[in-house]
Amino acid sequence: MGKIYVIGIGPGDSDYMTRKAYDVLQDCEVVLGYKAYIDLIEELVEGKEVISRGMGQEVERCKLSIEKALQGKTVALVCSGDGGLYGMAGLLLTLLTQQRKQPEVTVEVIPGVTAAMAASSLLGAPIVEDFCTISLSDYMNAWEKIKKRLSYACLGDFVIALYNPRSKARPHYLQEALDIVMQHRSVNTPVGIVRNAYRKDQQVICTTLGELVVEQVDMFSTVIIGNSRTSMIDKWMVTDRGYAL
Amino acid sequence: MGKIYVIGIGPGDSDYMTRKAYDVLQDCEVVLGYKAYIDLIEELVEGKEVISRGMGQEVERCKLSIEKALQGKTVALVCSGDGGLYGMAGLLLTLLTQQRKQPEVTVEVIPGVTAAMAASSLLGAPIVEDFCTISLSDYMNAWEKIKKRLSYACLGDFVIALYNPRSKARPHYLQEALDIVMQHRSVNTPVGIVRNAYRKDQQVICTTLGELVVEQVDMFSTVIIGNSRTSMIDKWMVTDRGYAL
Repeated sequence: MGKIYVIGIGPGDSDYMTRKAYDVLQDCEVVLGYKAYIDLIEELVEGKEVISRGMGQEVERCKLSIEKALQGKTVALVCSGDGGLYGMAGLLLTLLTQQRKQPEVTVEVIPGVTAAMAASSLLGAPIVEDFCTISLSDYMNAWEKIKKRLSYACLGDFVIALYNPRSKARPHYLQEALDIVMQHRSVNTPVGIVRNAYRKDQQVICTTLGELVVEQVDMFSTVIIGNSRTSMIDKWMVTDRGYAL
Repeated sequence: MGKIYVIGIGPGDSDYMTRKAYDVLQDCEVVLGYKAYIDLIEELVEGKEVISRGMGQEVERCKLSIEKALQGKTVALVCSGDGGLYGMAGLLLTLLTQQRKQPEVTVEVIPGVTAAMAASSLLGAPIVEDFCTISLSDYMNAWEKIKKRLSYACLGDFVIALYNPRSKARPHYLQEALDIVMQHRSVNTPVGIVRNAYRKDQQVICTTLGELVVEQVDMFSTVIIGNSRTSMIDKWMVTDRGYAL
């Protein structure tokens, strides 16, 4: 009987992977994933059957995992961050059920450190309390729906973590998103940009809603927008939880 | 010069801690934290100076960390999940800045697997896309503000992860919260309850908004409420991201 582990490898550096993820990667026979993520864990997968695919081939990656597991193999389906958030876990389980292959294939999801938490740890403590994640990619959601979510997130005073904040195909979305947020929040609201968290070329920028330079943001970045209780204290972006001090 | 690591230990089992958190715990001299979390990592902190405090003594815990670091010690301030989300990172940085003790004390936040991700991994893939966390504890936020956030989260069609969903002091909040969500979402919306994720006595329950039994939920639980795209497929709670299959 084959097994598929959906593994969230965290931000990138294998130090920030869970011990379980690390152990499973050592023990598995086949490693499947988006090429850029496989590259991050290159030294861990040496000698294994490694199948990497490009962006947009998510369905193929999941189908291949099932195929390999049906051959009795132990498969690691690798995602960055956490595999259950903008990752492959949902798609894999859906395909597996559609193909009625469950008795022969078991699945275990290994959680990971998602990008919002990785970025937060490098900025100080910008999240602290109730927050939301919003992906600015319109690959899966209409831009109108994304904009609506941004508005409601502001009305609810959530700290907002933007995933996939800016791609070459839609470079203007980020500014549009910031403009929506500025209808609700002060231009002085702190914003943190973390690029390549815990990877080579890591960059951490603290700015504000009004001063953010969108060109400093790319698809390897996470953008964290403070709420009404967020401020810069010294070099740190911190949201106040309200402790009496 | 002393150093304080704010460590998110993840859900509980040391396998689900990051490798970095594990290494830092081995290397530090003083371990500080809420008693229940220290108990989870008991075997890792043997022989160290361990200072555990009860719930509600967050300020004291942070102040003690600073005190120990000022003595030149390496301190691990332990939080469950991630220290930057409902954890100690914000409070520590605030106190440190107020006391102007930064040059003598450095701080590093080690991110962890937050409860929403841990619960998600055990339920299948209930989050998948844009989601929010809301704590039902009114210790730091007024109940009116929490209710408002619940409404906006529903209007934005976010998957919702409820933290601190039910305590003895406010056992009725959870049902009130579900009633608010049912004004926006079908009673048949899948809801997952995960109690003691990756700990002894782990319990995973899949139910619906209309059928959830609030007595099955306590402070060691995380409740994940699906959005308009969430369904049960076989035994798994899965939110559809919209891939063409």
